Amino acid sequence: MENFTSLGLKIIDNSIFYLDQTMLPHEEIWPEAKTLDDMILAIKKLKVRGAPLIGLFAAAYIQKLKEENESKEGITKAIEILRNTRPTAVNLMNCLDRMKNGDHATDLIQEDVELCQKMGNHGAALINDGDNILTHCNTGGLATVGIGTALGVIKTAHDQGKKIHVFVDETRPLLQGGRLTTYELKKLNIPYTLICDNMAATLMHQKKIQKVFLGADRISLSGDFANKIGTYSLAVLCKHHNIPFYTVAPFTTIDPQMNKGEEIEIEQRDPKEVQGFLGKFEWAPLDSKVFNPAFDVTPAELLTGIVFDFGVFTKEELKNGKLKEKVKSLGLL
Amino acid sequence: MENFTSLGLKIIDNSIFYLDQTMLPHEEIWPEAKTLDDMILAIKKLKVRGAPLIGLFAAAYIQKLKEENESKEGITKAIEILRNTRPTAVNLMNCLDRMKNGDHATDLIQEDVELCQKMGNHGAALINDGDNILTHCNTGGLATVGIGTALGVIKTAHDQGKKIHVFVDETRPLLQGGRLTTYELKKLNIPYTLICDNMAATLMHQKKIQKVFLGADRISLSGDFANKIGTYSLAVLCKHHNIPFYTVAPFTTIDPQMNKGEEIEIEQRDPKEVQGFLGKFEWAPLDSKVFNPAFDVTPAELLTGIVFDFGVFTKEELKNGKLKEKVKSLGLL
Repeated sequence: MENFTSLGLKIIDNSIFYLDQTMLPHEEIWPEAKTLDDMILAIKKLKVRGAPLIGLFAAAYIQKLKEENESKEGITKAIEILRNTRPTAVNLMNCLDRMKNGDHATDLIQEDVELCQKMGNHGAALINDGDNILTHCNTGGLATVGIGTALGVIKTAHDQGKKIHVFVDETRPLLQGGRLTTYELKKLNIPYTLICDNMAATLMHQKKIQKVFLGADRISLSGDFANKIGTYSLAVLCKHHNIPFYTVAPFTTIDPQMNKGEEIEIEQRDPKEVQGFLGKFEWAPLDSKVFNPAFDVTPAELLTGIVFDFGVFTKEELKNGKLKEKVKSLGLL
Repeated sequence: MENFTSLGLKIIDNSIFYLDQTMLPHEEIWPEAKTLDDMILAIKKLKVRGAPLIGLFAAAYIQKLKEENESKEGITKAIEILRNTRPTAVNLMNCLDRMKNGDHATDLIQEDVELCQKMGNHGAALINDGDNILTHCNTGGLATVGIGTALGVIKTAHDQGKKIHVFVDETRPLLQGGRLTTYELKKLNIPYTLICDNMAATLMHQKKIQKVFLGADRISLSGDFANKIGTYSLAVLCKHHNIPFYTVAPFTTIDPQMNKGEEIEIEQRDPKEVQGFLGKFEWAPLDSKVFNPAFDVTPAELLTGIVFDFGVFTKEELKNGKLKEKVKSLGLL
């Protein structure tokens, strides 16, 4: 496959390297994913994360196997194992299905770069000069192979010369906001303020947040969507404070098999993530019972709209079944 | 003054020892507060925290000075310095005013023990067998010298034989829930589940939380109150999900000089607290701009009621000025 470099992924002479996101922002380490075990570890431990990036990372590995003349059985088995590494983000399943159907990883990668740019343009049109924007988790160049989803929208608005400020939810337990979004915004020279997740409501009450943009891991045909834990909380807070609330995702995040958000399987993760910080330090009793869902589901009625690569769908359009129609017209259903 | 021992404070032969709460739950270290500098450090660094406990800790120190025949000027100066260590919790100011007016620290300490028990009884009457209760920050024996405020209510219900389960918000940035409330609940043998602050909404949506009880650092005459950051967020979430939301506080947390919550000064703390964990580990870029209010203000209209030592005041009673009447009848105004 073609050589490729993005913020979190490098393909060099058919070898796959990933930026270990658990070590950011302090260390930039680029391990090679040589084996299926390397792939499983990288995905399960969130060394590689972000719904679109996981899918493309897996696609690249399947492409590598194809080009190394791995047997059809070997490839089928690798696809099955990879699709079960994490259950919630549908991009992984979508990408692997497309690889099974003969797509080329380079095409999928190039497609994601373009999808990000399209979402960026559609979303940036919703941002006004002077807006303060709250975001959650990481949805940028570390979550995709392009400029990102929600963070791509923010970058595009910034590139258009709009003066914006970003409030970054640290996003417990794995701190993708505090570690990764800060890292990206710093590189992009976009001004930001880091907050703890429980501070967002206060900023809303003080009218310091004009809009919320965040990502999605799986979108049902009704517009209900799964995203990083904490998203639903923000959606309710936005409703109370009358703040526009958008999710941003490419069509590859739509699950044409799911009609409603309640059907989405939510990954429960290791209690240690909540008892401390990334296994590096524990501050809670280690026998504490813990609730640790990696995602939550936000009902479409709490959305202002979804920014897709093919345009913005409002809450009303979602309610009227327009997304299902669109998915059919795209040949996905 | 009389010898005294509680979960977080020991007075032995006029020497004051405190449990260093920044080291919990893993280490139980009891430094002595010998000097005014020791006191300032302990309060500012949250080694001693919790609105009632801070006030009584300061009162004990003033008592110690009195019994060591410190000059009146020395005592007045110590009172002034201590009252400026932290701005939001009013118990500190109330206790120091009472020490200035000739009260004895032992009386204030004994009073707090009794106030906690009274709040416990009033609040426990609101809890049903089988309730799951969410709490925030730490409001127990480590925040008072008795059984606590909100956690005292929970303990009392548990002691009454009600089968309850507690969901504990970890309470970023300083993790008083994850470190201290877990520590106390474990000692009390009350079953609990630790969550990140951004997970509470999901539990509410799943109807897994029947009631929320938490503390207060300052209550205005209207019933608006300051409490640990994240409280306002929970109040809005409770409103959306129709979940009863109570704060629990002794009369010493009322500020008779404040009519409205917006008058309450909110302490802004060190960015390092948000950039990492207690200065022990930093995971965010250290040049990140940070918003780090230690408290937020919740308007009375989001409350179901306030559990005081002198009874429960409902939202309607607060709205009708009953708290101001009560404060007058207590001779506080």
